[in-house]
Amino acid sequence: MPNNRVEKLLEKLDKSGLDGFLISSPPNRRYFSGFSGSSGLLLISRSTQLLATDFRYWEQAASQAPDFTIFKATKGLKEWFADFVSRAGVSRVGFESSDVTVSTASTMRRSLKKAGIKTSLISSGDLCSRLRITKDAQEIALIKKAAAISDGAAEHARRVVRAGMSEIELAWEIEGYMRTHGSEPIGFSVICASGPNSALPHATPSNKPINPGEPIVCDFGACVDGYTSDLTRTICVGEPDSQFKKLYNIVFLAQKAAIEGIFNGIKASEADALARSVIQEAGYGDYFGHSLGHGIGLEVHEAPFLGPSSKDTLGEGMVFTIEPGIYLPGWGGIRIEDDALLENNRVTLLSKAAK
Amino acid sequence: MPNNRVEKLLEKLDKSGLDGFLISSPPNRRYFSGFSGSSGLLLISRSTQLLATDFRYWEQAASQAPDFTIFKATKGLKEWFADFVSRAGVSRVGFESSDVTVSTASTMRRSLKKAGIKTSLISSGDLCSRLRITKDAQEIALIKKAAAISDGAAEHARRVVRAGMSEIELAWEIEGYMRTHGSEPIGFSVICASGPNSALPHATPSNKPINPGEPIVCDFGACVDGYTSDLTRTICVGEPDSQFKKLYNIVFLAQKAAIEGIFNGIKASEADALARSVIQEAGYGDYFGHSLGHGIGLEVHEAPFLGPSSKDTLGEGMVFTIEPGIYLPGWGGIRIEDDALLENNRVTLLSKAAK
Repeated sequence: MPNNRVEKLLEKLDKSGLDGFLISSPPNRRYFSGFSGSSGLLLISRSTQLLATDFRYWEQAASQAPDFTIFKATKGLKEWFADFVSRAGVSRVGFESSDVTVSTASTMRRSLKKAGIKTSLISSGDLCSRLRITKDAQEIALIKKAAAISDGAAEHARRVVRAGMSEIELAWEIEGYMRTHGSEPIGFSVICASGPNSALPHATPSNKPINPGEPIVCDFGACVDGYTSDLTRTICVGEPDSQFKKLYNIVFLAQKAAIEGIFNGIKASEADALARSVIQEAGYGDYFGHSLGHGIGLEVHEAPFLGPSSKDTLGEGMVFTIEPGIYLPGWGGIRIEDDALLENNRVTLLSKAAK
Repeated sequence: MPNNRVEKLLEKLDKSGLDGFLISSPPNRRYFSGFSGSSGLLLISRSTQLLATDFRYWEQAASQAPDFTIFKATKGLKEWFADFVSRAGVSRVGFESSDVTVSTASTMRRSLKKAGIKTSLISSGDLCSRLRITKDAQEIALIKKAAAISDGAAEHARRVVRAGMSEIELAWEIEGYMRTHGSEPIGFSVICASGPNSALPHATPSNKPINPGEPIVCDFGACVDGYTSDLTRTICVGEPDSQFKKLYNIVFLAQKAAIEGIFNGIKASEADALARSVIQEAGYGDYFGHSLGHGIGLEVHEAPFLGPSSKDTLGEGMVFTIEPGIYLPGWGGIRIEDDALLENNRVTLLSKAAK
């Protein structure tokens, strides 16, 4: 019996004229099957739910993906792919062309041809990751756990930061806290950028020593059962300078406008505008060079996307970041980022760290 | 002026009937340009060396890749790709089809077509990663640094391991040691597998407490300027049982046979057989289910591949792991892995941790 997630995928396949679908991308594989191994391929149809994986994962796959029949893949894809597809008796099977490489698609097609199997492989883009856009109670609980760990790490960073410490040292304090407080290994590196470095939204931590008074942008997330949080706090050793105070206040009010103004059915581009207009009116519109936020879940960047050109609409059960910023080249940057759940027609913050 | 690495690629392109090549995979991008950012595309021809990247990396790219002209990519690939390719004036440009997704290749082709550019995009598999198979002095120096860090972590693990500690705690001790002793974030998770768990070569650390006497397989690597080490030690709390001693001795002798028997020009399959035959003769051939080793460098698994069906030949300047193992379901496993440099027609071990 297909579960609720698979049922939604099957409905989407019907509409797309497909009778089967291959899922190769790790987050989608995990979402639809429960299997978290590094290597595997799902094949889903009305009658069949198969998971192909190699000997390293046969035991784990059987335990994590009880709704799926495990197909024991041995040797290379070209040896087993035709047999795998033939088990489902499908004629038009889609694949994730945003994940599958040209070489792999070519191997798949040759394997079918060689075996005389008539199934057509249909390049289907990123057909199913948007089915993850609305989170269920179990997913929200995991993101809350991850957010609580990153909250703790933010407190820890405030406690241990001192002048003269390098960005790398502070980043390691944050990562160490999260990893020893329940976080799985994290797919993205901790950002700690101080002074002028903080003017780059994606700076890599360096050996630069932290100076009193300058902004320190710390951006990081924890991971629990595959679900991530994503938090940014801009902190300071000693007394912040007047520029810091002024910009922090603008960014804080921009974020507040978005938190208070987002409701079910608002366009994601309008959500972005709620915060952006505050920064623009303060005269810093040119210094907020990125989008307001992005969905979080099994990926740290996923739908919905909150930006000026987004076509998404925000709805009940979506979880996304709200992270306005101002970046002045030469001086530094201020960013404040929280994780938001849209429930009961309003935003509830899942991250609670002090701002 | 193309450097030595680019020159070798250009020779390979000539032989393949290509007058340009697009490099998208991160390790190849870094190898040929020096650029270590997470996003970018190289275009190399006899007359042109271009690096396209987005605003996050313009400064870093200019500093890391001085031999390349930075192409400032804005918006999506489909907006800038045709302009990028047209700068090189090439007619047949290869791309890494083992890295590029079907969707991306399609976007590239549509972009050229829309702009009326006649350049053909040729699917070229993994044409250039094998050019990294022989390491130069600078690369060897970096792998040595990484190996020294993992050696230190092995010592640390021996010092802190105790009965009752969980696998996750021990794995974290190892990772924490490496990260605070000069290692960059590591692309692969530390393995600590104890007792029956150690029978799985790729076990994920669990909450299982470590018991006295049982094998604990610890497999991990450090990373310095992008170059990795890869080390496995099988350790024990208290006195190992007789099974442990017996199997450890066989694996040790198997590894020794490979270390002493490998020379310039030996087939990688024969290198594998040097160790495998020792394990087979001891009666455990069915319990050594993986290959003897693999190259290390900018990737933790790269050419040469040392296994029964490998077509590689080992030569001067190659760096690879030698890692035989025996895995008994229900009891556990023994693996010993070192990093080997083939120089002056013999193996020199870059890892020095006690066995």
